[in-house]
Amino acid sequence: MEQHRVALLGAGGFATGSHLPAIAATRSLRLVAVYSRSSRSVQALAQAAKKYASTAHDDLGIYCDEDGPEAGLEALLKRDDVDTVVMALPIPAQPALIEKAWRAGKSVISEKPIAPSVAEARRLISLSSSSSDSSLPHLSTSRPRWLIAEQFPYTPSFDRAARLVRAGRIGRVRSFNVEVYIQVPKPVGEDNWRKVPDYQGGFLLDGGVHFAAALRHILPSPPISLSASVRQIQPYLPPIDTLQALVTCEDGTTGTVTVSFGIERPNEDKKFVFRGERGTVEVDFADSRTHVVRLVNLPVPSENGPAVEEQHEGCSGPEEPHRMEMEFPAEVGVENEFEAFGTALSPSAGSGSGTSEVLKRCGPRATLRDLAFIEAAIKSSEEKREISLRELVGDEYWNLE
Amino acid sequence: MEQHRVALLGAGGFATGSHLPAIAATRSLRLVAVYSRSSRSVQALAQAAKKYASTAHDDLGIYCDEDGPEAGLEALLKRDDVDTVVMALPIPAQPALIEKAWRAGKSVISEKPIAPSVAEARRLISLSSSSSDSSLPHLSTSRPRWLIAEQFPYTPSFDRAARLVRAGRIGRVRSFNVEVYIQVPKPVGEDNWRKVPDYQGGFLLDGGVHFAAALRHILPSPPISLSASVRQIQPYLPPIDTLQALVTCEDGTTGTVTVSFGIERPNEDKKFVFRGERGTVEVDFADSRTHVVRLVNLPVPSENGPAVEEQHEGCSGPEEPHRMEMEFPAEVGVENEFEAFGTALSPSAGSGSGTSEVLKRCGPRATLRDLAFIEAAIKSSEEKREISLRELVGDEYWNLE
Repeated sequence: MEQHRVALLGAGGFATGSHLPAIAATRSLRLVAVYSRSSRSVQALAQAAKKYASTAHDDLGIYCDEDGPEAGLEALLKRDDVDTVVMALPIPAQPALIEKAWRAGKSVISEKPIAPSVAEARRLISLSSSSSDSSLPHLSTSRPRWLIAEQFPYTPSFDRAARLVRAGRIGRVRSFNVEVYIQVPKPVGEDNWRKVPDYQGGFLLDGGVHFAAALRHILPSPPISLSASVRQIQPYLPPIDTLQALVTCEDGTTGTVTVSFGIERPNEDKKFVFRGERGTVEVDFADSRTHVVRLVNLPVPSENGPAVEEQHEGCSGPEEPHRMEMEFPAEVGVENEFEAFGTALSPSAGSGSGTSEVLKRCGPRATLRDLAFIEAAIKSSEEKREISLRELVGDEYWNLE
Repeated sequence: MEQHRVALLGAGGFATGSHLPAIAATRSLRLVAVYSRSSRSVQALAQAAKKYASTAHDDLGIYCDEDGPEAGLEALLKRDDVDTVVMALPIPAQPALIEKAWRAGKSVISEKPIAPSVAEARRLISLSSSSSDSSLPHLSTSRPRWLIAEQFPYTPSFDRAARLVRAGRIGRVRSFNVEVYIQVPKPVGEDNWRKVPDYQGGFLLDGGVHFAAALRHILPSPPISLSASVRQIQPYLPPIDTLQALVTCEDGTTGTVTVSFGIERPNEDKKFVFRGERGTVEVDFADSRTHVVRLVNLPVPSENGPAVEEQHEGCSGPEEPHRMEMEFPAEVGVENEFEAFGTALSPSAGSGSGTSEVLKRCGPRATLRDLAFIEAAIKSSEEKREISLRELVGDEYWNLE
């Protein structure tokens, strides 16, 4: 198998703990270089790479800015044998590096959110798709120039829920309720890593886009507008830690969304419920080890007389709702995601349906909607009115193609 | 005990099944007359009264319009021995009859909602409190002129939740989620009693005010604005059967509310959840026989070190949340409500704290807020913006005193 060669930029916890093992597990990807700003952190990253057979090769390039310009990012980007740059860097740092990587002729997998703001995301999407910008080399294959590592559409529980809902197993969706209450503990002593973030929304942007992405992936009709209220409850979680929204989809379906990192809880409480004309789908992901997807199907009423049950395996009586419970490991989906990314990026992929599916789940225009969800919530809270996601994103960026 | 003499107007299901037995059970009230438009229905009502010892007396006055003006409502209202008129009549019919009863010098207990519209409710409140309108006689005692039979603040489960929340058992309220999914079956054959109602909101006004009232009663800080979306899902439930709202309270607390009579369900799903800084209170009233109130208290963190549990009976370990589950009969609260009304109306009540509590739960200005909740939701959905409940109600009607 011809492998697609990648460099990993960033040595934070998610880069080491999730991106690195996901790259290692993806047969179509080969890690050829790693980079971090400091020598110490990149050495730790290189050390971590040695744990996996597929990334433990001796010719792994190690780059950091501390060792001078010939050993830093510029040097890494000059290498011809790097096809794609994978970034797991702080939100505000990514846009400039994404652009730099493109100008060096690389594809980019960047960590969510797509950008710190909708305006910045639009600028980058526009740049990435521009054929007139001579500073942007054509990629040697038809591979995507940009994918965003937003793993929730690849998390098995959410993906299963999406397939159930999209296959019509609960009929038309009537309503949904999202309740995500996550406890972020108060930092102890001098640890103030949660100081005021230099991007809108803070923790709520960073963590919140995931739930917007899961909702987008599951709903058959996309959210197009919302009314929301955002607040800060915990002093140590500035600028906001709680979001509540009323969401309207293109087909008129409405639902409510609560995402809070600031409300004290006896337990974490994380749940998506979709109610349709023929049943309900629930994703309960409060447990740290097991996600549970519950499907309830209503008996179908006949035209004249009592309800008759559709034929499903294990159904219980003609008038009883049919219930099914599925358990999934609470894995975050990063490996599935990189597997799909690897296929889409490999030279043989072309622009087949695999690539189109990847773009639908994690392409720039898809993940722009997740960012817009958070930005619209902030804007709606400030302006006390419904905000159109479509207007915020812009007609020319709304189309997923 | 000196009894307060009441006449019951209306012979529908709720008048016969709830108001009549509640009056019968209230020692301070004595039913002296009944009225309905048709002879047949008032005879049925009189017959039903005979089932209760306290209303089975021979001198029960029976009035209907079919038997001529001297046997109809006008004649009933001319009786000096009727202190209060209890109305369980269709929403659009009540305002004119309320006014008529006042002009005859009677107090009124009318069925919720207070009026078909906020404008009409304001007009009636203004009239009832007007000292300059010479057509409105002073009541012989200081008893309230008007109470609205909205029983949810007197329903044991909601009232218990209110006392827990208001007593600070969960600390400051952080957020709330109300989910009420009720199945209203499709009428069979020619039964189209659910034809287009002649008042706003239809079923959603009629049934929805209850949940607004329960929420109002439980929340320590009143809802002051909302963003909402209303829809019709079932063709047989015009004009709307589903409401979703994002609600903001005076102290900045936010919550979501879903009330639907139109969404197909495997089971009814009826739940209020209040999340506070020190725990949660949940009212689960999906079961038709038993309401469940669940209280969870978080361990209180000490200043330096691990959390320590407050002293509660039956607490489980120092670090575990304390959980308590309480069951209540799923009674609707009408009897408790009439008991309180009877005390407030009796000549000896004066303007004591009992009356003030009754007015806080079921007075005109209190229940005006419930009506405003539904009207604001409809308005917000039309205008796609947040609606201020306080503005809609009007500053001069917002004060509960």
